[in-house]
Amino acid sequence: MENFTFYSPTYFVFGKESEGQTGSMVKRFGGSKVLLHYGGGSVVRSGLLDRVKDSLKAENIDFVELGGVRPNPRSGLVYEGIELCRKKNVDFIVAVGGGSTIDSSKAIAAGVVYDGDFWDFYSGKLIEKALPVGTILTIAAAGSEGSPDSVITREEDMMKRGATGDAIRPKFSILNPALTQTLPAFQSACGITDIMAHLYERYLTNSTDVEVTDRMIEALLLTMKHEGPRVIENPDNYEARANIMWAGMMAHNNSCGVGRTQDWNSHNIEHELSALYDVAHGAGLAVTMPAVFKYVMKHNVMRFAQAAVRVWGCSMDFEHPEVTALEGINRLADFLTSLGMPKNFSELGAKEEDIPKLVENLCCGNGRDGKISGFVTLDKDDCTNIYKMMI
Amino acid sequence: MENFTFYSPTYFVFGKESEGQTGSMVKRFGGSKVLLHYGGGSVVRSGLLDRVKDSLKAENIDFVELGGVRPNPRSGLVYEGIELCRKKNVDFIVAVGGGSTIDSSKAIAAGVVYDGDFWDFYSGKLIEKALPVGTILTIAAAGSEGSPDSVITREEDMMKRGATGDAIRPKFSILNPALTQTLPAFQSACGITDIMAHLYERYLTNSTDVEVTDRMIEALLLTMKHEGPRVIENPDNYEARANIMWAGMMAHNNSCGVGRTQDWNSHNIEHELSALYDVAHGAGLAVTMPAVFKYVMKHNVMRFAQAAVRVWGCSMDFEHPEVTALEGINRLADFLTSLGMPKNFSELGAKEEDIPKLVENLCCGNGRDGKISGFVTLDKDDCTNIYKMMI
Repeated sequence: MENFTFYSPTYFVFGKESEGQTGSMVKRFGGSKVLLHYGGGSVVRSGLLDRVKDSLKAENIDFVELGGVRPNPRSGLVYEGIELCRKKNVDFIVAVGGGSTIDSSKAIAAGVVYDGDFWDFYSGKLIEKALPVGTILTIAAAGSEGSPDSVITREEDMMKRGATGDAIRPKFSILNPALTQTLPAFQSACGITDIMAHLYERYLTNSTDVEVTDRMIEALLLTMKHEGPRVIENPDNYEARANIMWAGMMAHNNSCGVGRTQDWNSHNIEHELSALYDVAHGAGLAVTMPAVFKYVMKHNVMRFAQAAVRVWGCSMDFEHPEVTALEGINRLADFLTSLGMPKNFSELGAKEEDIPKLVENLCCGNGRDGKISGFVTLDKDDCTNIYKMMI
Repeated sequence: MENFTFYSPTYFVFGKESEGQTGSMVKRFGGSKVLLHYGGGSVVRSGLLDRVKDSLKAENIDFVELGGVRPNPRSGLVYEGIELCRKKNVDFIVAVGGGSTIDSSKAIAAGVVYDGDFWDFYSGKLIEKALPVGTILTIAAAGSEGSPDSVITREEDMMKRGATGDAIRPKFSILNPALTQTLPAFQSACGITDIMAHLYERYLTNSTDVEVTDRMIEALLLTMKHEGPRVIENPDNYEARANIMWAGMMAHNNSCGVGRTQDWNSHNIEHELSALYDVAHGAGLAVTMPAVFKYVMKHNVMRFAQAAVRVWGCSMDFEHPEVTALEGINRLADFLTSLGMPKNFSELGAKEEDIPKLVENLCCGNGRDGKISGFVTLDKDDCTNIYKMMI
């Protein structure tokens, strides 16, 4: 196990009607002038936004609003939010929505207190200072409610990149599983896929002797395997939604990823797809993961065999471990397909002729030097081959 | 799943030589005058205490010392610590040791800023304010390094009771697995047993649909099953020590215990043994757990069968699930014995004739009303029967 630090100071309020505690949470963490940041549509129609506003008003907390966040959140709205916060002397940002809204809020929070361009953080600069952020989560997926991470797409060149720093870990996150019961099946499945990807990205490690985190990752994958189909079958299943929601947070606050190198190449490879085609991140991951895993499997067959046996219930082929390893990847792919996820470029709406452009952005965009590193370092040829496997 | 809140803001520094960061951690969390609290013996002889002092000096942090904490820490030293802190204007407490030292530090931290008797907190009053505490952990066991809990024994009547409150969650905890390599096998085994007890106490729930936390608890039990024997066989196995150390923290910071009722009757029943005979808490738990589990098994046979199959690798007897359930409990008992733990009253040094006194203290001491509640509510007859099963 490698040395590490771990810090997850977010206060989680979990359960039915918990959004009614927004005001008291903002007060607890010292906020007096809030930016309410959200997408639009469902949070307005469902009445959630009104309930959050009522909760703020009940604590006499003043607020301004900025809606319009879209999936794969954009830099334009971040600049707008930064300006609004400065103009209105906002001291706390409350995100009402999913990973996109939370990530946009985090970007604004870091940008408000920074003299330079906020994009610096998305080019590798660590976020060390930010306005406090709170979240009311509406989809179990990104894990941004408990993570120090944010992903934004820069509009001028459609570059999708991540930033990180403990300063943007939310002060509080309100998790009401009932809010996710109205999600369309496709979005629920995208969320489940994203959570499973966060687990696999940590599972694919070059560190040895990591039994405790291996077991925890497997535990959360087993949870998704059990609860995923229950949610797709019955969207109103509060209990299954609740189990997925807590698993989604645990999958990404890094308590099961500490002390080990991680991968993140499936995410990197997928980000180019969602940036170029504006497809749902989870859908892109469902197509990406099996291809990446098959391509890198030979790097550590026993690791994939372990997941196959412990998570997917495969029988171990001791004479041919690679058979078991591959069976585990196939079972993952079949599982995602059974949830309604796409399985190739055409179902995703991606085009073979764009592969050179995808690879160029992936390996050379935003200062990268021709390759991406992780479980296996992948150069442009590798990435081309992987995208071709998705056709 | 039940509604819950979860808050674990401790900053963890994990790995080799991490005790060198004590000074910078105290500084990060605003301490300027430290009480260094410890037991004595090994932390002095090993040079650990000197390294911690050097780290404080390097940051120009002033400190006073209070050693002498003993296993099953006592109220007398807590009163002494409170007085010392007030006299010396201490604003931060650093515990160097195991659960006993950390719990004693937490009690002092709560007592210093409280006008009444600190024992009020150990009689049920929530701890809402305390001096900040940091820890340098020397044994993986109690989980106090990441928990809001503390257990103290009141000397005048040997009453052993717990207190809780987010205010006593450590600000930072330094976890260097190498520090545990010098522990005698018996102490290591006691720690492993305590960690497993913290997991079983959460596993035994009356809440339903708790897949995610069930799976996480099982993951941590599987880790202990794998790493425990490796540590007993080779005390210098850093990697096994590291896995156990992180599992010990995760077992008790409650991330795997949220949203479900918990038990804690094995702890309650054991506390009377360690209070009366001053035996090691883990050793007491090794004798207590199998007896309690067999006694309450009929309350939910399938829960015990699930642990038997998923953790202990038993084959499910679908016609007689109680056979599988019992086999799982027996395998746990055998596992603990294989680590060198005692298995009955006589090996523990407890006496049959003391049972009435144990039961009286357990069920009626410190304001209790004749029974203890948990997975199953147990009255004096139940507790008498359970103690008798341990003979």
